[in-house]
Amino acid sequence: MTTSTAVLHRLRAELGSRLSTDPAELQGARADRSGYTAPGMPLAIVRAESIADVQAVMRIATEWRVPVVPQGAATGLAGGGAGSDGAIVLSTASMNRILEVALADELAEVEPGVINQALSDAVAQYGLVFSPDPASKAISTIGGNIATNAGGLLCAKYGVTREAVLGLTVVLPDGRMLETGHRSIKGVTGYDLTALFTGSEGTLGVIVGATVRLRPIAAGTVVTIGAFFDTIVAAAAASAAVTAARLRPAVMELIDHEALKAIDAFNGTTLSASGGAYLLVQTDGGASVDEADRILAIVTGAGGTAELTIDPEVGERLLAVRRSVHPSLAARGEVLIEDVCVPRSQLAAMFGEIERIGAKWGLSIPTVAHAGDGNLHPNFVITPELALASGEVPDVVWQAAGELFRAALDLGGTLTGEHGIGVLKKRWLRDEVGTDSFDLQRQIKAVFDPLGIMNPGTMF
Amino acid sequence: MTTSTAVLHRLRAELGSRLSTDPAELQGARADRSGYTAPGMPLAIVRAESIADVQAVMRIATEWRVPVVPQGAATGLAGGGAGSDGAIVLSTASMNRILEVALADELAEVEPGVINQALSDAVAQYGLVFSPDPASKAISTIGGNIATNAGGLLCAKYGVTREAVLGLTVVLPDGRMLETGHRSIKGVTGYDLTALFTGSEGTLGVIVGATVRLRPIAAGTVVTIGAFFDTIVAAAAASAAVTAARLRPAVMELIDHEALKAIDAFNGTTLSASGGAYLLVQTDGGASVDEADRILAIVTGAGGTAELTIDPEVGERLLAVRRSVHPSLAARGEVLIEDVCVPRSQLAAMFGEIERIGAKWGLSIPTVAHAGDGNLHPNFVITPELALASGEVPDVVWQAAGELFRAALDLGGTLTGEHGIGVLKKRWLRDEVGTDSFDLQRQIKAVFDPLGIMNPGTMF
Repeated sequence: MTTSTAVLHRLRAELGSRLSTDPAELQGARADRSGYTAPGMPLAIVRAESIADVQAVMRIATEWRVPVVPQGAATGLAGGGAGSDGAIVLSTASMNRILEVALADELAEVEPGVINQALSDAVAQYGLVFSPDPASKAISTIGGNIATNAGGLLCAKYGVTREAVLGLTVVLPDGRMLETGHRSIKGVTGYDLTALFTGSEGTLGVIVGATVRLRPIAAGTVVTIGAFFDTIVAAAAASAAVTAARLRPAVMELIDHEALKAIDAFNGTTLSASGGAYLLVQTDGGASVDEADRILAIVTGAGGTAELTIDPEVGERLLAVRRSVHPSLAARGEVLIEDVCVPRSQLAAMFGEIERIGAKWGLSIPTVAHAGDGNLHPNFVITPELALASGEVPDVVWQAAGELFRAALDLGGTLTGEHGIGVLKKRWLRDEVGTDSFDLQRQIKAVFDPLGIMNPGTMF
Repeated sequence: MTTSTAVLHRLRAELGSRLSTDPAELQGARADRSGYTAPGMPLAIVRAESIADVQAVMRIATEWRVPVVPQGAATGLAGGGAGSDGAIVLSTASMNRILEVALADELAEVEPGVINQALSDAVAQYGLVFSPDPASKAISTIGGNIATNAGGLLCAKYGVTREAVLGLTVVLPDGRMLETGHRSIKGVTGYDLTALFTGSEGTLGVIVGATVRLRPIAAGTVVTIGAFFDTIVAAAAASAAVTAARLRPAVMELIDHEALKAIDAFNGTTLSASGGAYLLVQTDGGASVDEADRILAIVTGAGGTAELTIDPEVGERLLAVRRSVHPSLAARGEVLIEDVCVPRSQLAAMFGEIERIGAKWGLSIPTVAHAGDGNLHPNFVITPELALASGEVPDVVWQAAGELFRAALDLGGTLTGEHGIGVLKKRWLRDEVGTDSFDLQRQIKAVFDPLGIMNPGTMF
């Protein structure tokens, strides 16, 4: 009996119908939303329904030294959840119960498979919301959000996922269960293992439960401002001026001309004729109208042609422009969404670098940015002309992406603001963090995962 | 030549006048503000003036296996910075330059010895503030705030120290320098070593630099509400009702009757005759007046006798009541400030437990609480009648404190919300985090500090 056969036998005995080796399902489990598909074929998929299921899988994996790839909704954008060759794909997507909503404590206890938006929907009646708002929030799981420390549009004002996680329940590679953190807002007993697991991309253990903070839904009128500028540099300067005025809008998004053109082609609009770049700002909270008035003055003074609305429907239409960027690009080909983040003062410079790199490599790199926190998403579209028969990302794209990462680092930034390292960026990780940090991080991994079975192709 | 002599010889050669072995200074370095004094005597104090100084000390300490206790302003409340027997006390208090204030990026680069308030003072002219606000902020260093992940009064609204730290420069035990984190707001490359060092209490390395976030000073009128209640339970219920109304005041503090009596005795006031407990609330931001009106209605409806003011001087006088708790108690004897934190819904129950434990052990336990985040500071006052000749904390106090920690854990809380484990609480650490977590944390320590020379008496 081969190892694989023995492992499958044991998994079948303990997990029963939660185990699948259906070739079509295994095929599907090789990919996430990054465009990456892992080479080879996973050994099996287990759709865990309980912590005990996860523990059973990890004990078997440890016994037989089989790699395990934890997976939520597989909406990741860096390949970190793609089922690799010979691995057990351990899905926690079916563990999707909201176990408790503690209103007085403004927190929830959830299983990892709960969809981000589903939690906000469940608590909206109490005036609460789950803050982390990745663009994928309608389809991504909270477990996945935590594993990647997901960001989103609201982070400059409301923080990233880490700020919303109070505690975790984790199954370690050997099957033991570990609790981290607290139900209290503060707590400093020992090292911050909750933060260590947040963003660890499935390399330390399997998140099987989370205590997450909820926050009051912002009071007041939501005010939306949309403004066209001649150039992306001018738009970026306007957003910097908003920050410099010590204003903190909930949303502040930039869309460059290449992205506007793609939207026009997709929607039949003429946005790209109205300006070279678009800035979208939204304020909320009790002073939102006053803040929006001040922002409008700044934006107009910086050369923007702006409209302001307190009508939710009109505001939603303006936001829809931002949301249509990805579908517009996806209509042209496979989209590789990059994710550099720079200090806010360097936003305009980074846009300049993107233009330079696009011109150098003959690539169109439509870009959107969360201007409030300096996080840019330059998109590489693998059009039919660029695509390789193998389905892999063409080398020219990786070369341009590599230059882009280098430019972000040179501007004091990072190669990933919110998507993670996954498999797609691991070749650049050491460049950013340095050899000492890289080695220390690998040793930390070894503390939790001495056999190296947790998502071994990811991050390192 | 003994080891000690050899080490002192080397330190003298490399550090010159930054080294001191003056007995009075060594004596002073044995204590922090917790009331704890380490037994024995440190070997020496080095007052580092540069990263190179810190590296030199750590290389010597590694070569000779000498323990090192990093120290800032020695304002800690858990004994974590107290110079232990035979250790080199490595003070970074003199490394107190603000290296850069990046206005567009709303961040500062600071040396670890910068006083918390000094940074806020330096950036106030730009409309910015450094959020973390431990009660010690006028005298504590940012390096120390980071080492303990310090809290304060504003945390429910503005976060703890961790949320304000973007990146760190650390000298590892072997003298290597490590950079963690980013200058950008977001960043998810690799494990969150910045968060791991934040709150690590000098057990992993020496913080020699930090990139910290600044935030806009809240706009609008600061409104202050002070309210007397018959009982602390009623006051705690009122604060819970404020949270339940989805309001988020900047400050929400509770003072119990024992603490009011101490204030009266110290200041000659008659606060304790006006009620059994005092609730202090402060709102800020563009909607502060409206929020305060709603809070006033809730507080009054919950049985409070309240006054509201928008006069900064009157507000300051009300806040002064809260600030005078510690000096009032310190006038009676050595104060051991405890620091439990419970889910907000359990605040009233925790106050009940404190009353029960005080009665059981015949101790007065005056208590104040940051009600917005469930963080209570029950105070044990070592009056002359209680004091031991040895200067140590009487056993009855530790027994009562132990019950108090147990009660906090049973209510879903933690034994330290913001002061840290230090040496004073390490006997309870394993009780809270469990054996697996405890062992994993020790292994993480060993990754950074394989020789166990970093603050060895602290935390574990």
